[in-house]
Amino acid sequence: MPNKCIQPGDNPDLTKERKTCTFDTDELTSNLYGSRYAMERRREITKKISTDPDFANPIPLEFLSREKRIEATAKKTKSLIQRGPELCDVTKPNEMYHLVNEAIGIDGYPLALHYVMFIPSLVGQADDDLAAEIIPRAMSLEIIGTYAQTEMGHGTNLRELETTATYDKKTQEFVINTPTRSAMKWWPGNLGKMSNYAVVCCQLYIDGKKIGPHNFLVQLRCEKSHKPLPGITVGDIGPKMSYNTTDNGFLAFDNVRIPRKHMLMKHSKVSPDGVYTSPMHAKLSYGTMVHVRAHMVYSHGHMLATAAIVATRYSAVRKQGRIEPGGPEVQILDYQTQQHRIFPQIARAYAILFTGLEIKDQYAATLKGIAKGETDLLPDLHAITSGLKSVVTHMVCPSFLSFLNSPLFQVGLGIEQCRMACGGHGYSVGSGLPQLYGVQIGGCTYEGENMVMLQQTARYLMKAVKLTGQGKTLSHSVAYITKKENGKSLIGLEGGDIYREIEIILSTLEHTARRLAFEASQLWENRIKGGETKEQAWNGVTVEMNRVSRVHTRLFMARCFHNRVLSSPSSIRPVLTDLLSLYLHYECVDMAQHLLEDGHCNGGQIQYLKKRMYEDLATLRPNAVSLVDSIEQSDRELNSVLGRRDGNVYEALYQWAKQSELNYTDVLPAVQQYMMPMMEQNRSKI
Amino acid sequence: MPNKCIQPGDNPDLTKERKTCTFDTDELTSNLYGSRYAMERRREITKKISTDPDFANPIPLEFLSREKRIEATAKKTKSLIQRGPELCDVTKPNEMYHLVNEAIGIDGYPLALHYVMFIPSLVGQADDDLAAEIIPRAMSLEIIGTYAQTEMGHGTNLRELETTATYDKKTQEFVINTPTRSAMKWWPGNLGKMSNYAVVCCQLYIDGKKIGPHNFLVQLRCEKSHKPLPGITVGDIGPKMSYNTTDNGFLAFDNVRIPRKHMLMKHSKVSPDGVYTSPMHAKLSYGTMVHVRAHMVYSHGHMLATAAIVATRYSAVRKQGRIEPGGPEVQILDYQTQQHRIFPQIARAYAILFTGLEIKDQYAATLKGIAKGETDLLPDLHAITSGLKSVVTHMVCPSFLSFLNSPLFQVGLGIEQCRMACGGHGYSVGSGLPQLYGVQIGGCTYEGENMVMLQQTARYLMKAVKLTGQGKTLSHSVAYITKKENGKSLIGLEGGDIYREIEIILSTLEHTARRLAFEASQLWENRIKGGETKEQAWNGVTVEMNRVSRVHTRLFMARCFHNRVLSSPSSIRPVLTDLLSLYLHYECVDMAQHLLEDGHCNGGQIQYLKKRMYEDLATLRPNAVSLVDSIEQSDRELNSVLGRRDGNVYEALYQWAKQSELNYTDVLPAVQQYMMPMMEQNRSKI
Repeated sequence: MPNKCIQPGDNPDLTKERKTCTFDTDELTSNLYGSRYAMERRREITKKISTDPDFANPIPLEFLSREKRIEATAKKTKSLIQRGPELCDVTKPNEMYHLVNEAIGIDGYPLALHYVMFIPSLVGQADDDLAAEIIPRAMSLEIIGTYAQTEMGHGTNLRELETTATYDKKTQEFVINTPTRSAMKWWPGNLGKMSNYAVVCCQLYIDGKKIGPHNFLVQLRCEKSHKPLPGITVGDIGPKMSYNTTDNGFLAFDNVRIPRKHMLMKHSKVSPDGVYTSPMHAKLSYGTMVHVRAHMVYSHGHMLATAAIVATRYSAVRKQGRIEPGGPEVQILDYQTQQHRIFPQIARAYAILFTGLEIKDQYAATLKGIAKGETDLLPDLHAITSGLKSVVTHMVCPSFLSFLNSPLFQVGLGIEQCRMACGGHGYSVGSGLPQLYGVQIGGCTYEGENMVMLQQTARYLMKAVKLTGQGKTLSHSVAYITKKENGKSLIGLEGGDIYREIEIILSTLEHTARRLAFEASQLWENRIKGGETKEQAWNGVTVEMNRVSRVHTRLFMARCFHNRVLSSPSSIRPVLTDLLSLYLHYECVDMAQHLLEDGHCNGGQIQYLKKRMYEDLATLRPNAVSLVDSIEQSDRELNSVLGRRDGNVYEALYQWAKQSELNYTDVLPAVQQYMMPMMEQNRSKI
Repeated sequence: MPNKCIQPGDNPDLTKERKTCTFDTDELTSNLYGSRYAMERRREITKKISTDPDFANPIPLEFLSREKRIEATAKKTKSLIQRGPELCDVTKPNEMYHLVNEAIGIDGYPLALHYVMFIPSLVGQADDDLAAEIIPRAMSLEIIGTYAQTEMGHGTNLRELETTATYDKKTQEFVINTPTRSAMKWWPGNLGKMSNYAVVCCQLYIDGKKIGPHNFLVQLRCEKSHKPLPGITVGDIGPKMSYNTTDNGFLAFDNVRIPRKHMLMKHSKVSPDGVYTSPMHAKLSYGTMVHVRAHMVYSHGHMLATAAIVATRYSAVRKQGRIEPGGPEVQILDYQTQQHRIFPQIARAYAILFTGLEIKDQYAATLKGIAKGETDLLPDLHAITSGLKSVVTHMVCPSFLSFLNSPLFQVGLGIEQCRMACGGHGYSVGSGLPQLYGVQIGGCTYEGENMVMLQQTARYLMKAVKLTGQGKTLSHSVAYITKKENGKSLIGLEGGDIYREIEIILSTLEHTARRLAFEASQLWENRIKGGETKEQAWNGVTVEMNRVSRVHTRLFMARCFHNRVLSSPSSIRPVLTDLLSLYLHYECVDMAQHLLEDGHCNGGQIQYLKKRMYEDLATLRPNAVSLVDSIEQSDRELNSVLGRRDGNVYEALYQWAKQSELNYTDVLPAVQQYMMPMMEQNRSKI
């Protein structure tokens, strides 16, 4: 049987779907996770966790208060730390990523920031003395730390941060202070309750002179009692849309003194007598947030995949209405509207996962290069770093991925489409989808707000436009900007060869991205010619610039998907080609306005693209369930009564709901206290 | 001062915004709520509630467990019942609506379904005997009831419900039973814990013959002990995306016997000896859900308004970056991307509120008509009831509003845009926006799933297409379908007269809706000619049909907005015209694909529309805060630290966050239990 997920006792409608599979699901899974070995390793980890009492959830987290939820997660985290090596190869990031997903989930855990931000910033920025003092203690978890940058009044804009670090020559100390309410550190993960240390970003002042933002190691809580130290106000910022298992925190300093050596001085330094020296190599400073961002694209693809798995499986199980009067009730997956809602999300999930893999590879190669000082190896990374002079300023990370930030909102919409495709039950926390949306959509804001990100991409594209015709060769991701091509699209004329059609569509998208870039550049220039400053003029065209960035990004993703299909083994290439076909037709219909407005395409061609899109939906129908099965997320990862592999959703929904805290008693105290006396009183009135 | 919201102690940036107001905010508020008197009444109610200890929130609900939240709401509900008449004119629906919003909020309360579904279904469907027995007790709140229709396995599709009511001649009773797991009643509000009675929709069986769905009054819980009666399983279905103050419930029957007279027999009847008589007048049966739906459009406009108020005020207070290097930090409301995110939401909020008001009026008129049996007065309501044979079947309600259901997802997107426009703080529950989104987006599913609704609209439009050219006059809302007009749009040629431009845009939208309707009809026919059955063919074109319905709906909303502007007093007409101008330009740019694909508009005209849209953003900038002020939602209604009238957001955010349950102790038990021992152990290792 090509689909490897069939088991006895499964919902027969789901088994029926799996039997129509036309490809080997293990082949696709191996391809997605890199190798058959990697796939097997994932399965081993999944199996271990699913049976390990240390990671069991006696009560599903969604029924617990925040405090209890954090407690349950802290317990698992402790086990994860102690037993990690026995559960996976901790040197393999992919295995660790999967282990955390399985063991803990996506809502955060006490050491997330310790590993992702605290240690990396110390490694990247602490001088040898401080590194020797603190890194071993951090690595061995004698202390727990986080990274505190964002303030209540200012986010990613470092230059505006208000927290001050004033050097006191006499005592050779820095005085850390929070001058205003809006200067309070706000949002850092694990800051509120878990961390006893933090790397804190402050404005450095020496002799009354403002030097600018620098990082300092500050102890927040007593190592013995874990109580906040004198002068330190720290706590939890309260409930959020999601991530409520995480203690995002606030932090204020009342002239807290720290030794000079606790400034992170690998690059910038302050001598005992208060002489400031700026970094010799800005190169590796601010490298901290890098790998968070590098993995965002992939992890968001993973989340859209979760939603697509749930919606597709449930739509195969759920029945409603009849297409033919008197006919049998149909699986809702048979309705075109349902397919049109869900299948493009499956395609997008694959597209984003493939793009994420491509980015991870490029990124790893880049870091290797930087390590060896081989900056000449970086033209293509440079190309997608939004036109910054250097990949190695602190802006590299957001800009490196800036143009991939825009799909995140697309992911959010996709998750919501999948949730609503599950009807009423999608609204229940039992479906797993409300929390998933909450976690994912946070990504549109943290690590660089989308609008800001998009403009960085636009600035690079504008630079590429300027370079056009100067004989300079633009690097890969924007080489198309200078390409020559005819004014009309050939869509619809390819004569039934899908690979040729795909080429034509990609070149049409290229044409459109190029045209929009040149037009936006023109709009900008016109405003400058009209007397506005460059900056005023820019602010007058940013919405158009964001349009350009989005189309450029979607072109890049289409290319990543296409390249992946071309390099895929013949056994899975047909189904991936069907999926790519839907992806491209859907994208074109979605962007039809841009294809039409310069006459590059005509209405008939858009009609053709729609027709093809509907054909794709029908073509994919028999493989829909198998395509989501191949992404292979365990029931524990899905955390959804609707998406479970066996399709026995109704019984699961009931068993889940019975655990509601409101069902602990037959008669709710609130009813006893208010409703029953009210009714009693009204009866006695008569 | 034209803006009436300025008070001493306000955030100066917000005051600055209010001083640039060009119209009298009270004028607009009066216009929105019907009269100056109605506005004053709203303010009185707001004032009373804000100072009334019975409705105080010692701890904000968002920090409480579901159980505690329901308790707090039950307490308020009891006071609301006892003191309603002293708080507002309970005979005026608008005052009641506002009172509940102020006193209780949008997350539900114990008697919501009792008033909205239970009593109306009894009034509409119980025969005189049952009515006399139960309605007085329901009205005087001796009992609490709800309406239980939806089952786990089937939603709005009544014919597929599985719960059975089998008539037993010998005992003259109905036996109510839940034959399967999926037959469990699932989702009804206030069913889980609050209600002791319910009107239950069951399949009626007599002598082994299935008659079809009918409603029955069933007692669920003992009136004394409130314990579930024998044979009844009832409970809460667990946490949801929102509405967690509501005890949506599950309900199963194990052959529960009820007297024959407890069938709701105003229309269909079962005689003692088991003879079934079908309704003489289907007319008024199933009228139950009507007014829920009739008010959905307005209430969703109200929710989008809430988000727009929060985002606009916060964007005037929040500062980030500089447009000019070396210049001052700017209010983020000065960024074009921010204006483009928020201002169209303000426009849409007004458009939907105005549409909701129009619908309420039409609907009220219609009911009057029905009451007098004047079905001939209903052509236009009939016109927008999606081509159903009669307005008075049970489908009237969803179909009456079906074509207004599609804006609901638009509202959801709008709320999310507003939330993300608030950056990180929008993600905090303190912003009020995550909960607001959760409550609102539920509307895309309950009361008729959007996709289903849209198809009902499409079916009507197809009928209208068929009637074209047969000399029949189509009723108002679709009259445009038969209109003749030239093949090209005049957009851009109106020569600066905004009112003329608006006319041209509306006729362009009409052309587009008409064209799409005829094309979709053609696609459908072609499939039928191609050998498919009508139904197969329909399923093959539903996505296109939904497109048609959406454009038709957006045209209707644009017309409602336009009519409202034309009839508005001269003092506010200019600012409303600016808003309508943005609304229409934004809609056209959003639907540009449809304007372009038949050559009715060209690329140059789309460029023109964009240019006008950007001009509108700049024009509205000085009035943005005043436009949202005019919607006049109190801080209590907004329930947002970011949206508060005085704009002092940062202090409010801190005071709010301090109340987090995690801040009850300095050291979290979870840390004490797991993290501290772990760190201690690792230290001692050395």
